Amino acid sequence: MTDMQRITLARRPKGDPVPEDFSLKTGPVPEPGDGEIVIEVSHLSLDPYMRGRMDDVKSYAPSVGLGETMTGQGVGRVIASKAEGFAVGDLATGMTGWASHAIVKATEARVLPAEIPSSLFLGALGMPGFTAWTGLRKFGRPKAGETLVVAAATGPVGAMVGQLAKAAGLRTIAIAGGPEKCRIATETFGFDAALDHRAYEDASALRTALAEVAPDGVDIYWENVGGKVLEAVLPLMNVGGRIPVCGMISWYGGVEDADDRLPMLWRSVLVKRLHVSGFIIFDHWDEYPEFLAEVPTKVLSGEIKHLEDVAQGLHAMPTAFIAMLKGGNTGKQIVAL
Amino acid sequence: MTDMQRITLARRPKGDPVPEDFSLKTGPVPEPGDGEIVIEVSHLSLDPYMRGRMDDVKSYAPSVGLGETMTGQGVGRVIASKAEGFAVGDLATGMTGWASHAIVKATEARVLPAEIPSSLFLGALGMPGFTAWTGLRKFGRPKAGETLVVAAATGPVGAMVGQLAKAAGLRTIAIAGGPEKCRIATETFGFDAALDHRAYEDASALRTALAEVAPDGVDIYWENVGGKVLEAVLPLMNVGGRIPVCGMISWYGGVEDADDRLPMLWRSVLVKRLHVSGFIIFDHWDEYPEFLAEVPTKVLSGEIKHLEDVAQGLHAMPTAFIAMLKGGNTGKQIVAL
Repeated sequence: MTDMQRITLARRPKGDPVPEDFSLKTGPVPEPGDGEIVIEVSHLSLDPYMRGRMDDVKSYAPSVGLGETMTGQGVGRVIASKAEGFAVGDLATGMTGWASHAIVKATEARVLPAEIPSSLFLGALGMPGFTAWTGLRKFGRPKAGETLVVAAATGPVGAMVGQLAKAAGLRTIAIAGGPEKCRIATETFGFDAALDHRAYEDASALRTALAEVAPDGVDIYWENVGGKVLEAVLPLMNVGGRIPVCGMISWYGGVEDADDRLPMLWRSVLVKRLHVSGFIIFDHWDEYPEFLAEVPTKVLSGEIKHLEDVAQGLHAMPTAFIAMLKGGNTGKQIVAL
Repeated sequence: MTDMQRITLARRPKGDPVPEDFSLKTGPVPEPGDGEIVIEVSHLSLDPYMRGRMDDVKSYAPSVGLGETMTGQGVGRVIASKAEGFAVGDLATGMTGWASHAIVKATEARVLPAEIPSSLFLGALGMPGFTAWTGLRKFGRPKAGETLVVAAATGPVGAMVGQLAKAAGLRTIAIAGGPEKCRIATETFGFDAALDHRAYEDASALRTALAEVAPDGVDIYWENVGGKVLEAVLPLMNVGGRIPVCGMISWYGGVEDADDRLPMLWRSVLVKRLHVSGFIIFDHWDEYPEFLAEVPTKVLSGEIKHLEDVAQGLHAMPTAFIAMLKGGNTGKQIVAL
């Protein structure tokens, strides 16, 4: 057998990673234990999430330790197997890490069909494509006639999001870096329009251009970049719009202004998979009869308590209002005339 | 008939409103037109949303014009009616504005039952209580055993949110201003714990105290204040947590730091009723077979396009990764070994 090569995390990057943060190590190809297979890797995936694993901060997955092999998905041939369902010669995929060979637990590996190029399972048919497919239907909830904006639109997630949305009858707008990617977005991936974010000096200029190609506003903003694009899109969102937060690559190397709490919030939303829903009660009055059928008896019986803070006279409205905004009332503030 | 008194918006406030922003006007009681009623107001509601109506900015409802009667809900007796379903003497409610008498369209008014104190329809049984009931079930989606945090907890929205959540089997934590409101929160409204936000100098100190009374983290943060409380709660949110964004009273008078984009984002979420969902694909692998049943045939047929950017050799991983983070790749970045 040949030697195994792997790339380890040599040190934690400060901001953007540099080559010196990585180290190439060589050693013997490992032997599988019970329930394990050894994959000889033919293709490795590179994905933005890997940047997060290089930092020593709590996230949704453990960070890579110093000196450990960088994490990542690979495809290749099984060259040794002590697991049922995997034979030597099978094509398989698993979290091989950045390595020429890897031991993978059979429970965390998958045999791949021979009739599909294996590398597709790292992109369109793997984690990125599946991310687009799942996130769009679950959290984007596209409806025909709506408008979708996605950045990094020629990447494997963005391209799939755009094509699935287009097939569902949406107007699709790509944001990409450079004229060549914009050409690919419209010609290859069928986006209705594409904007080169590098051509706009700030969020405001990008917003103006976006408003022109999204004349009906934006119903779905697929968030995978954060930063300038987020700021450009937000004011263009339509009522009831959806923002699946899938990533924020522009902030992975750190944020410019440490006092800016927007990245902190956005990071919480992603890492904790939060569901943030703005709502205004005026949209929901059709359910008021249901409320009236349920709650008044409980309030009158005292099962649900209430508290009123009553000021006297119309002239008291301004001062009671001003006090209420500062928390000066206790309970529901009303004014009796 | 007596004269009608009303309070108008005399000028737009800069930051916190002051009494001089309002003006008391007197005039004759109006006569109803067809389909209208006149209500002699007994109780008027004061609600935080009114602050937003005083500004001349686009929101979910038009702002109050200078010289116009301040907007708001009132209850009282019908003293004149040219509308079916409303008789003189009926108790009724509608958007009367800050006034002793008001013409209201019958289609926008509601007859109230005589057996329930009318003022309740401004609080626990009106817009605030209904807001709590609707927002909690639709966007909070409470589950027994979870933990909920709500600020302004003795207000009519917060108190209802807390009691409904408690009845649903949640641990409920109140945040309120001052020891007396904290006492009311636990003793009257049954919160499991109450924290006085004024007792903590910053978000970090409040967060430490919150973590002690929410040892299992926070599953639902009912957002109606923004500011310090939001910043304290966010890092304590559990995976899959929900944040119904109902208001942000701490920012209604303006924000301290104009470069802080968090209030801008939060305001967009509220005004546009956005649904922001963080998600991580690793939570969703159980649906991967469904994806594999649908998407591969479309990719192989070319109905869905894909694009790969292939670098050669394991040694190329670091440089290809570094380039990808800066958008140097076109399509899915993989490395062939």
